[in-house]
Amino acid sequence: MAFNQPLGGNEMPRFGGPVTFMRLPTAASAEGLDVAFCGIPMDIGTSNRPGTRLGPRQIRDESRMLRPFNMATGAAPFDHLQCADIGDVPINTFDLKKSVAIIEDHYDRILAHGALPLTMGGDHTLTWPILRAIRKKHGPVALIHVDAHADINDTMFGEKVAHGCPFRRAFEDGCLINDKVFQIGLRGTGYAPEDFDWGRANGWTVIQAEDCWHKSLKPLMAEIRARIGDAPVYLSYDIDSLDPAFAPGTGTVEPGGLTIWQGLEIVRGCAGLNLVGGDLVEVSPPYDPSGNTALIGANLLYEMLCVLPGVPQR
Amino acid sequence: MAFNQPLGGNEMPRFGGPVTFMRLPTAASAEGLDVAFCGIPMDIGTSNRPGTRLGPRQIRDESRMLRPFNMATGAAPFDHLQCADIGDVPINTFDLKKSVAIIEDHYDRILAHGALPLTMGGDHTLTWPILRAIRKKHGPVALIHVDAHADINDTMFGEKVAHGCPFRRAFEDGCLINDKVFQIGLRGTGYAPEDFDWGRANGWTVIQAEDCWHKSLKPLMAEIRARIGDAPVYLSYDIDSLDPAFAPGTGTVEPGGLTIWQGLEIVRGCAGLNLVGGDLVEVSPPYDPSGNTALIGANLLYEMLCVLPGVPQR
Amino acid sequence: MAFNQPLGGNEMPRFGGPVTFMRLPTAASAEGLDVAFCGIPMDIGTSNRPGTRLGPRQIRDESRMLRPFNMATGAAPFDHLQCADIGDVPINTFDLKKSVAIIEDHYDRILAHGALPLTMGGDHTLTWPILRAIRKKHGPVALIHVDAHADINDTMFGEKVAHGCPFRRAFEDGCLINDKVFQIGLRGTGYAPEDFDWGRANGWTVIQAEDCWHKSLKPLMAEIRARIGDAPVYLSYDIDSLDPAFAPGTGTVEPGGLTIWQGLEIVRGCAGLNLVGGDLVEVSPPYDPSGNTALIGANLLYEMLCVLPGVPQR
Amino acid sequence: MAFNQPLGGNEMPRFGGPVTFMRLPTAASAEGLDVAFCGIPMDIGTSNRPGTRLGPRQIRDESRMLRPFNMATGAAPFDHLQCADIGDVPINTFDLKKSVAIIEDHYDRILAHGALPLTMGGDHTLTWPILRAIRKKHGPVALIHVDAHADINDTMFGEKVAHGCPFRRAFEDGCLINDKVFQIGLRGTGYAPEDFDWGRANGWTVIQAEDCWHKSLKPLMAEIRARIGDAPVYLSYDIDSLDPAFAPGTGTVEPGGLTIWQGLEIVRGCAGLNLVGGDLVEVSPPYDPSGNTALIGANLLYEMLCVLPGVPQR
Amino acid sequence: MAFNQPLGGNEMPRFGGPVTFMRLPTAASAEGLDVAFCGIPMDIGTSNRPGTRLGPRQIRDESRMLRPFNMATGAAPFDHLQCADIGDVPINTFDLKKSVAIIEDHYDRILAHGALPLTMGGDHTLTWPILRAIRKKHGPVALIHVDAHADINDTMFGEKVAHGCPFRRAFEDGCLINDKVFQIGLRGTGYAPEDFDWGRANGWTVIQAEDCWHKSLKPLMAEIRARIGDAPVYLSYDIDSLDPAFAPGTGTVEPGGLTIWQGLEIVRGCAGLNLVGGDLVEVSPPYDPSGNTALIGANLLYEMLCVLPGVPQR
Amino acid sequence: MAFNQPLGGNEMPRFGGPVTFMRLPTAASAEGLDVAFCGIPMDIGTSNRPGTRLGPRQIRDESRMLRPFNMATGAAPFDHLQCADIGDVPINTFDLKKSVAIIEDHYDRILAHGALPLTMGGDHTLTWPILRAIRKKHGPVALIHVDAHADINDTMFGEKVAHGCPFRRAFEDGCLINDKVFQIGLRGTGYAPEDFDWGRANGWTVIQAEDCWHKSLKPLMAEIRARIGDAPVYLSYDIDSLDPAFAPGTGTVEPGGLTIWQGLEIVRGCAGLNLVGGDLVEVSPPYDPSGNTALIGANLLYEMLCVLPGVPQR
Repeated sequence: MAFNQPLGGNEMPRFGGPVTFMRLPTAASAEGLDVAFCGIPMDIGTSNRPGTRLGPRQIRDESRMLRPFNMATGAAPFDHLQCADIGDVPINTFDLKKSVAIIEDHYDRILAHGALPLTMGGDHTLTWPILRAIRKKHGPVALIHVDAHADINDTMFGEKVAHGCPFRRAFEDGCLINDKVFQIGLRGTGYAPEDFDWGRANGWTVIQAEDCWHKSLKPLMAEIRARIGDAPVYLSYDIDSLDPAFAPGTGTVEPGGLTIWQGLEIVRGCAGLNLVGGDLVEVSPPYDPSGNTALIGANLLYEMLCVLPGVPQR
Repeated sequence: MAFNQPLGGNEMPRFGGPVTFMRLPTAASAEGLDVAFCGIPMDIGTSNRPGTRLGPRQIRDESRMLRPFNMATGAAPFDHLQCADIGDVPINTFDLKKSVAIIEDHYDRILAHGALPLTMGGDHTLTWPILRAIRKKHGPVALIHVDAHADINDTMFGEKVAHGCPFRRAFEDGCLINDKVFQIGLRGTGYAPEDFDWGRANGWTVIQAEDCWHKSLKPLMAEIRARIGDAPVYLSYDIDSLDPAFAPGTGTVEPGGLTIWQGLEIVRGCAGLNLVGGDLVEVSPPYDPSGNTALIGANLLYEMLCVLPGVPQR
Repeated sequence: MAFNQPLGGNEMPRFGGPVTFMRLPTAASAEGLDVAFCGIPMDIGTSNRPGTRLGPRQIRDESRMLRPFNMATGAAPFDHLQCADIGDVPINTFDLKKSVAIIEDHYDRILAHGALPLTMGGDHTLTWPILRAIRKKHGPVALIHVDAHADINDTMFGEKVAHGCPFRRAFEDGCLINDKVFQIGLRGTGYAPEDFDWGRANGWTVIQAEDCWHKSLKPLMAEIRARIGDAPVYLSYDIDSLDPAFAPGTGTVEPGGLTIWQGLEIVRGCAGLNLVGGDLVEVSPPYDPSGNTALIGANLLYEMLCVLPGVPQR
Repeated sequence: MAFNQPLGGNEMPRFGGPVTFMRLPTAASAEGLDVAFCGIPMDIGTSNRPGTRLGPRQIRDESRMLRPFNMATGAAPFDHLQCADIGDVPINTFDLKKSVAIIEDHYDRILAHGALPLTMGGDHTLTWPILRAIRKKHGPVALIHVDAHADINDTMFGEKVAHGCPFRRAFEDGCLINDKVFQIGLRGTGYAPEDFDWGRANGWTVIQAEDCWHKSLKPLMAEIRARIGDAPVYLSYDIDSLDPAFAPGTGTVEPGGLTIWQGLEIVRGCAGLNLVGGDLVEVSPPYDPSGNTALIGANLLYEMLCVLPGVPQR
Repeated sequence: MAFNQPLGGNEMPRFGGPVTFMRLPTAASAEGLDVAFCGIPMDIGTSNRPGTRLGPRQIRDESRMLRPFNMATGAAPFDHLQCADIGDVPINTFDLKKSVAIIEDHYDRILAHGALPLTMGGDHTLTWPILRAIRKKHGPVALIHVDAHADINDTMFGEKVAHGCPFRRAFEDGCLINDKVFQIGLRGTGYAPEDFDWGRANGWTVIQAEDCWHKSLKPLMAEIRARIGDAPVYLSYDIDSLDPAFAPGTGTVEPGGLTIWQGLEIVRGCAGLNLVGGDLVEVSPPYDPSGNTALIGANLLYEMLCVLPGVPQR
Repeated sequence: MAFNQPLGGNEMPRFGGPVTFMRLPTAASAEGLDVAFCGIPMDIGTSNRPGTRLGPRQIRDESRMLRPFNMATGAAPFDHLQCADIGDVPINTFDLKKSVAIIEDHYDRILAHGALPLTMGGDHTLTWPILRAIRKKHGPVALIHVDAHADINDTMFGEKVAHGCPFRRAFEDGCLINDKVFQIGLRGTGYAPEDFDWGRANGWTVIQAEDCWHKSLKPLMAEIRARIGDAPVYLSYDIDSLDPAFAPGTGTVEPGGLTIWQGLEIVRGCAGLNLVGGDLVEVSPPYDPSGNTALIGANLLYEMLCVLPGVPQR
């Protein structure tokens, strides 16, 4: 069987061709796919700057630079996995709570086809309904959550659904294996120590950004792999985990973040884990007209693809 | 009595001082005011580009250039009206329907103080709850609605509350005197002729942009004044009524719009009417980093102030 | 038969969905189509600022705002014509002369399918090979050429192929009915009177921008329609014909240009002509990050669609 | 004698070559020149947004598009006048008052060489010292002052030297023939009617922007030419006279301004006058990264060159 | 006593509310305050790019993201200090030397109220008059000066007052305890070795950027704390000390600078010192429309607040 | 003999003066020069984003900040070398292959004058013809090639001349001493391992970016110096070798790159080598309107100047 391949630069200039993830073919559904790239164009869960509704469009656009082979790791994912871009979830942009239901339903169907979803956000609210769908398929999962924020608020402005709450909701819904939850990159200002300690009190491991400064994260990832073992794992990557020097185009900026080298070490360090899904969220195009933040997001999604089960590593 | 005055450029450089409308004093409520400048930082009702949540901030920022005297009309509003900036409505950015209720309640209180509200948007959804509050105070009102779009959709994506629906809702709520409703600047693409004809069928007067091209709108405004007479009037000015050459920083751009000269003629042409409120909506700062769109919005709000009852014209 | 329809805003938010022209379905070729929207991602023919290689991507992106019905003219093109986006021409970005041959060959095939091509540029060099293909199908054609520049240089920097030469080449190749060639909007600086007079000497009608100032172009279009009669016509619209106030995102800017109202009058004024193809060229995204120039380009392409033979006018 | 010629696009691509006005040769002084293009990189006289210090650099950069022949008027200035770019005035950016003295001294020397200065600004403060130097050479002059603002404040923040005061100072210094002073385009807000009426009281003619709306300014210019006769004339063109749609990159933006068509009519309408100098001021590059405002400024300067005495008109 | 608190995100969306530092209440003077946040909107002391006059406005705007509790250090400054935003100093933007006097006078009054000033710049010239006021209150002080430049020029363009001279002036005025002066981050190009060695010759400690590369600055700060002991200390933080990757929006950019991690280590490393004032200068909004540079500046100011005497550390 | 000096900031404000590299004098040819700064305004060899045609203009513009003395290394290059800016190569922007021949011819002449060329690009295609010229003068050379990409494609889109091929062509032409070729910073995605291994198979040393993370490159440069010895060396610096955090304004962005500190270590680490030429390529101004990427490029070129033979190091 021949797998779908990204459209190559020798067939069509990189600035032309379809605006799909890596210029892959589209598919009407996840049927027959190993991996489904899916967009969720949403920003109504954001609390500061808007714009992530346009994230999927710009990530796809800038992903045109990506070639199929990973020079660093030797991964050749398109030799081993059938991938396609299945388009966007038709969220209801006027009602956040309904959107959450639409997302969950959409992912139920992706998962029913046996495809592994890699998601282009959109604001971080979306991870909650995805994790709900994942739980129905896989039971509770380990979680690697890379972010500047814990996103475990009980409420924001009195609301249970917002981009600062998804992991609190997922916890309440039994989506997580609590001693296999890792939050990396947290920092900045908050309302109280509980903002980070709530997770710890529930068995989660919180690695604050300050503990990552000036060093490689390879040792951390080795430890995380050891602790997760072969449990199913979900990887949620908020682009604002990176310092804004690396990812200026986002909405809730916190200085002092991870470097892109650490970001790549984290994703590449997931090789060997039993990944069952992943997302890349919070790219806000209006705040980076160069497109570089989206391009970095596209690279991180590609790196997720490269560490999925079934892709040999060098 | 000495009225509040904008902070002058000879007391504080224009790039300093408070970020209030025209660098006016703030007030905790509308009590004692003739005119209350109020912001509604909202974009969750938008259907295309986001960003109007930041509109009030940028309009206030750029309003720093405005001096108190209108060189064109001779209006000196701060000699006749007590004005202040009463800050923003604390909308619930995660729930559009609740936000609408918050706005209505907020404007009930402004109106209870006897102040006339001039609003900095925010997306156009906000005009509906304002008109509901206005109706309670004034009964149905005449409407001058300057816009690229009719905003009379019954629903958008199945929702009754969205920035394309406020005037349908206001109609249903009995807020409008239908034979005194004027929509100016409508154009572009739609789903069917009804997009503009629904209003006409209800007695509204729709002046499409094409009917405004290449000419002054002073005659139109004379006709509108004659038809409105002394009925109470609300003026809702969507910045996207202007051609994007004049107002690039907005979310649902339609080429072929009004000129700024026409825009000024419309607002200045309201002198003599019994205005009871006005808004300037749909400025989206991320789409005009120069600030010029917001600056134009600030000017239009100032021109509204200059034609309020009680301000002598030259 | 049900024709292809643009994806509606009530099915998918406008900021989501496929990045095709108006979110139409794609087609692998022009087979079975009445109208083929085709991109030519090229800027290696430009002489000043680059960037038009990204024009097709941004025009498609911003075309998401377009709804199917033309509120001004009553045209409903998707009720009458089978349309699709057939993607981009795989030009050779390292060799301009080869790219020209690739384009001609590509359009030979589009035309062989009986489809009418509407092209998203790309720099103006592309019109020459399209006209060559058109000539093989239709013989010489009338031309309505809207531009700041005559584009009839014999050579640029000694080269025969460049974005300042396409109409000289098309003339030499017998593509044009010389007494039915109209150039509208020409202006600015040049090397000699011959820059505009060469066409006149060959029977062309040149309407300089200054002759368009301060007035409607409806009378001009009536005259042009009368003179063209039922000859096949090609419409080539360079976005820089518009004054940069309306279309800042382009590469060879000349102040003092047409207004958008005039631009719309020109395209709408083609209704009734026997149009056989059209293009919209020279949108350079890096010079307008707001996307508004591309959005205007998308609107003008849509207006071309609305005046094609077979689309009833109100 | 062979005059200096702008470097042509067939000798060097327009995006290369020297960054001088129109890619003209430089000259160490005005000696031997008919026309000296001179930059004054200053913004310390501005009262709102900064940035005009970079005006001369960006005007020169974008002037690369200009070719030698004026297609509209038939002027071929480089066939008749010896022109060069003499670089910038070394203003003291830490002391505005000293800068004014430096400018006056610099222009004394330009004028002593018999050259006519065309100046790239820089904020409008610079016109005062230029007019002082002009007076020493030519006596009082007629003035055509195109601007959004009258710039006749007695003081700003208590200071006599600022970009809002140059024409008051020039008046006091006897630089002007008061019944031959024309201010065109004034508008916006002010402190009192005197902002515009002071000039009128001194015999000046003030044409407010509103009196220019919706029409050609050719009749106005005919009248101005008749009234000026053969008196020496200085032309001071503030880019903010244009509506911000046409010239967004400036510091003290006032909506409702002149169109670029009117701007061109004004400058072209100076043909036949005894021009003795001109300036183009208030281009602020940081507020228009596209460069279009500077490009328009460069065109207006070129148009000034085209109407100088000694350049035949068609 | 209840201290002033920043307006919380659950009371008002972060994109609404007052544009004060951290959305704190304003105060008409420093009376009764422990800490006064004060803006100095000035850029007439800058030597390259302008724009810092808008720094205070953008820092306040972007500070809206800051919550009251420092997740990294456990500091809760608003539980221990009465803070307010006292607005801007009304500098004379047309006269740098007068502005310096205005600033000194303004800070005399702040200090007379017993408040500790934290300043939002503005260009670096402003530190000189602040240090003069500080000396009158506290005598000579230790100095931690974080910058790309030494700012110890005797003159610039012959002037004693400019943004490259403040520490030379402060030295001459006896404001500094010379063996307790630390300059961190210096780099780039200069005129001679004396640019950095002059301070050394006067007993200052200069840590060039190259000595900071690839490592944590915690050891450096420990050494600095030991050497300063309990002397009063002023902290002057020029945002251009950071590499432009982290702070692109500034005027005199030098590559090879500090990281934001080091920047945070420096400010946090001041905990335990007897700080008597601090400033954050040289943010130039036009050069970073995303607002991220200002947001980082706001964070650094907040971190200064967190290490003031009286704020317990974890 | 007095060498040319950059125009100082005390003679002309940095935002004024000539737009040459470091505001050096221009020269009509390389005659009499030790070092010739030369621009190649070209982007028609690029495969993704365009814009490098404007690189030389923006690099020169932003180089205005550079002062003559290197504070870090003590180099004072203008005390030892006669330098000038010799302007741009008049490439044929419509024909890449002809441009390559023009460049080679141009550099033959520079080298014939005995000058060492330091080149401002322009896309990386240009290094091939420079190396061909260098070979004629110096024979094969050692190469230090800093880049995200190997640029050793045999063809791109079937073409032998493109910005991804220059070092393959230079290899074929015998320009390189293969065991003295060092490629630093390579990373990202590719088509196959051969993208990096082809060079290795030919004796080149490839240091992938991942091998550079989290450390100083001083040891690497020591090793490279030892291996090169006194062979003539060419230094080709592609700005995209840097992580996009440091150099966002470029066309083929790859995350995970070198830091600016490493970039400076690499160039400074060339001190002592027998450098015979250098280039700084791939700065694309439209993708960094702040100018910072160009400013960094200017700094790196200056650092190259500082390590040329004949410049004493501290």
